[in-house]
Amino acid sequence: MVDYSPALMTDMYEYTMLDASLKDGTANRKCVFEVYTRHLPEGRRYGVVAGIGRILDELSRFLLSDEDLRFLSDRKVVSKETISWLENLHFSGSIKGYREGEMFFPNSPILQVEGTFGECTLLETLVLSVLNYDSAVASAASRMVSAAKDRPCMDMGGRRTNEWAAVAAARAAVIGGFQGTANLLAAQLYGLKAIGTAAHCFTLVHDDERSAFASQVEALGRNTTLLVDTYNVEEAVKTAVEVAGPQLGGVRIDSGDLAAMAQRVRNQLDALGATNTKITVTNDLDEYALAALQSAPVDSYGVGTMLVTGSGAPTCAMVYKLTERENSAGVMQPVAKKSKDKASVPGRKLAYRSYEYGLAETEHVISGSETQLAEYRPAEGWKDLLVDYVDHGDIDSRYQGHAAIADAHEYRAKALRELPITAQSLMKGEPVIPTEITVL
Amino acid sequence: MVDYSPALMTDMYEYTMLDASLKDGTANRKCVFEVYTRHLPEGRRYGVVAGIGRILDELSRFLLSDEDLRFLSDRKVVSKETISWLENLHFSGSIKGYREGEMFFPNSPILQVEGTFGECTLLETLVLSVLNYDSAVASAASRMVSAAKDRPCMDMGGRRTNEWAAVAAARAAVIGGFQGTANLLAAQLYGLKAIGTAAHCFTLVHDDERSAFASQVEALGRNTTLLVDTYNVEEAVKTAVEVAGPQLGGVRIDSGDLAAMAQRVRNQLDALGATNTKITVTNDLDEYALAALQSAPVDSYGVGTMLVTGSGAPTCAMVYKLTERENSAGVMQPVAKKSKDKASVPGRKLAYRSYEYGLAETEHVISGSETQLAEYRPAEGWKDLLVDYVDHGDIDSRYQGHAAIADAHEYRAKALRELPITAQSLMKGEPVIPTEITVL
Repeated sequence: MVDYSPALMTDMYEYTMLDASLKDGTANRKCVFEVYTRHLPEGRRYGVVAGIGRILDELSRFLLSDEDLRFLSDRKVVSKETISWLENLHFSGSIKGYREGEMFFPNSPILQVEGTFGECTLLETLVLSVLNYDSAVASAASRMVSAAKDRPCMDMGGRRTNEWAAVAAARAAVIGGFQGTANLLAAQLYGLKAIGTAAHCFTLVHDDERSAFASQVEALGRNTTLLVDTYNVEEAVKTAVEVAGPQLGGVRIDSGDLAAMAQRVRNQLDALGATNTKITVTNDLDEYALAALQSAPVDSYGVGTMLVTGSGAPTCAMVYKLTERENSAGVMQPVAKKSKDKASVPGRKLAYRSYEYGLAETEHVISGSETQLAEYRPAEGWKDLLVDYVDHGDIDSRYQGHAAIADAHEYRAKALRELPITAQSLMKGEPVIPTEITVL
Repeated sequence: MVDYSPALMTDMYEYTMLDASLKDGTANRKCVFEVYTRHLPEGRRYGVVAGIGRILDELSRFLLSDEDLRFLSDRKVVSKETISWLENLHFSGSIKGYREGEMFFPNSPILQVEGTFGECTLLETLVLSVLNYDSAVASAASRMVSAAKDRPCMDMGGRRTNEWAAVAAARAAVIGGFQGTANLLAAQLYGLKAIGTAAHCFTLVHDDERSAFASQVEALGRNTTLLVDTYNVEEAVKTAVEVAGPQLGGVRIDSGDLAAMAQRVRNQLDALGATNTKITVTNDLDEYALAALQSAPVDSYGVGTMLVTGSGAPTCAMVYKLTERENSAGVMQPVAKKSKDKASVPGRKLAYRSYEYGLAETEHVISGSETQLAEYRPAEGWKDLLVDYVDHGDIDSRYQGHAAIADAHEYRAKALRELPITAQSLMKGEPVIPTEITVL
């Protein structure tokens, strides 16, 4: 249906830098690039990594078609020699990083990409696009799931973000703790649970609410969820139970004072004998609204806009920086820029998390040469935060596919439980554990 | 490379509503759906429509493959009879709406979709995803372009949003007044001007800054733009002019106090005889930062994060509501929901903008039956805001493709000039013109 190359989802300067570096030979220098963020969004206590499985998927498709090569040539983005190099484009480097569902903090080395300058530089834009958006959604989702306590949260945000972002958001939401999504393509691509109720237009297209409810129950069964706020909620609930009987699966409320409305509807349902009928609420929910609804008799939440826009932080500030490279003598050297307020920490990294009484205490980032890091021994009980995703071009498929998403969903719940409980506070504050950088 | 159907970029309930409405016959009722927003983002004076050309592109691909149908069947989303209906899925309705690049306000009927309930309801999610994101970016872009006065703004935000959102954002940015993008896929798909400089890693991969600059000038010519803040800006500018000569195309500054730095660099360049060398600045710019840079000697801007995240408003609040439908007797009737704070205005709409002394005064939205609207005569000088995009399934190709984007870019500039100048104020306030709704 659409034919595209992820290799063109790239800023032009990655290609012009490739072109210049192929001419002067630096394209072949071994390099280590690192993805990290200098800071979390204001007041956030932690972030949740998401998107790496998608990067691995794109990596296996990171090729240029003849049409793409013609485009790069016609637009004079690169020279003929570079076109020849690009015909054989294949990432043969290695990638390690944090797991999906893992917590991250300022300066956590979330991903490290090792390979030649040429092949690594081309990956920058795509890697950052995926990680910055997916992690923003997973981080927001995680706060919402905490605020919702044991009540399931469902993604209904597809219509409030770009249509492909919607698909990625559904995946990231589930990694962040959500239970399912309304988005069918996400359900298809990622094996997610698909959920849904009905829209106001369904009630409106019928001559009256009763015939709409009857039609929905006829098609979807009594276990369906009926939307009860198109006209008058009280009348709608009465009609709903008359039509479906007390076995009615659920009702959805999408407007008004949700807590007060849920309370009234719960009492009404109970009085009608529909004691097992669930109440779902939707309507611009965010983590604060969810926290405020804790004492209301609600059974599940549909979250839209604020999920897919990262609840005030629609992107992470992750960057992709060169931290080590071969010099002209073929010796690896740490490098760092010194730009004002944006200086980077040189050298490849190890990352561990230390614990006290079962609770995370410090994020340890260790920088050094390959030899130094190979000899480094962490203290007892420190968790090694890095896994190998790609080994000299070979992608570890355990981190792709449906099972990896379910793993990440579980992993995030466990990793959050291991953080000091302040992590779950919605009050603005510092990252819940400090990051300690050791340069060997 | 990837095979997908935009028809699955859809919330599940659109399909279950289709299923129920096919069973009870309402799927065949003629309907009018309307896209509008109840409010602009807080304090914004106007919005800019973008994304309709992309919706038209997707509409021509809005089909389900055998695999998609199997998915819908396996997951029991719809019944067998509905699968048969979906095998012949083809939008045969009509769409009219605002032009891309047009200004919109609360209750502007941005898009009206007319057809059977079945075919119209399936379009909801995709239509909203595209319009909500693209218009958010175009609206932010337009404010930035105003704040930048005559200096060109370039999209460099791809890495800070989902990888496909990045492609859509580049297109929307150009509609909103930007001149080009760093994103190559956007340049390829939409015929946009591609731009770029170099990253810090390019300087770092070389043994020293001089060899990096020499390599870039060798590969890209003296007219290239060199990044001068990797180590020390003053030294870098000196080296840059030594390497490229006073014909050097430009320098980019990406950190520090951009205004003060631009002033120092301008003086230094002039003293070195590089009086035509341009200065580009980047680094988390938004419309406020651009306004603050007006008196600094800057030649162009690269805008990233704040562009692709809508500068604080990453989505519009556009909704897709049923406003008119056939009843069981085959007669068209206006309909509206009465949900608290979310009531809709019934009936199909006309839309006009009236002017006084060449400046927009009021947005007029006229609601009525098809007959009433056909007989309606606007006052002299009112601009008709609606164009026909799709006529009984036939897409008007003038609104697709590269030329349509250039047209929208021009149109936005003209439409903005016709608004009271308060529209260009960055102070928070009410929409710059009121929307007056007349129900015939």
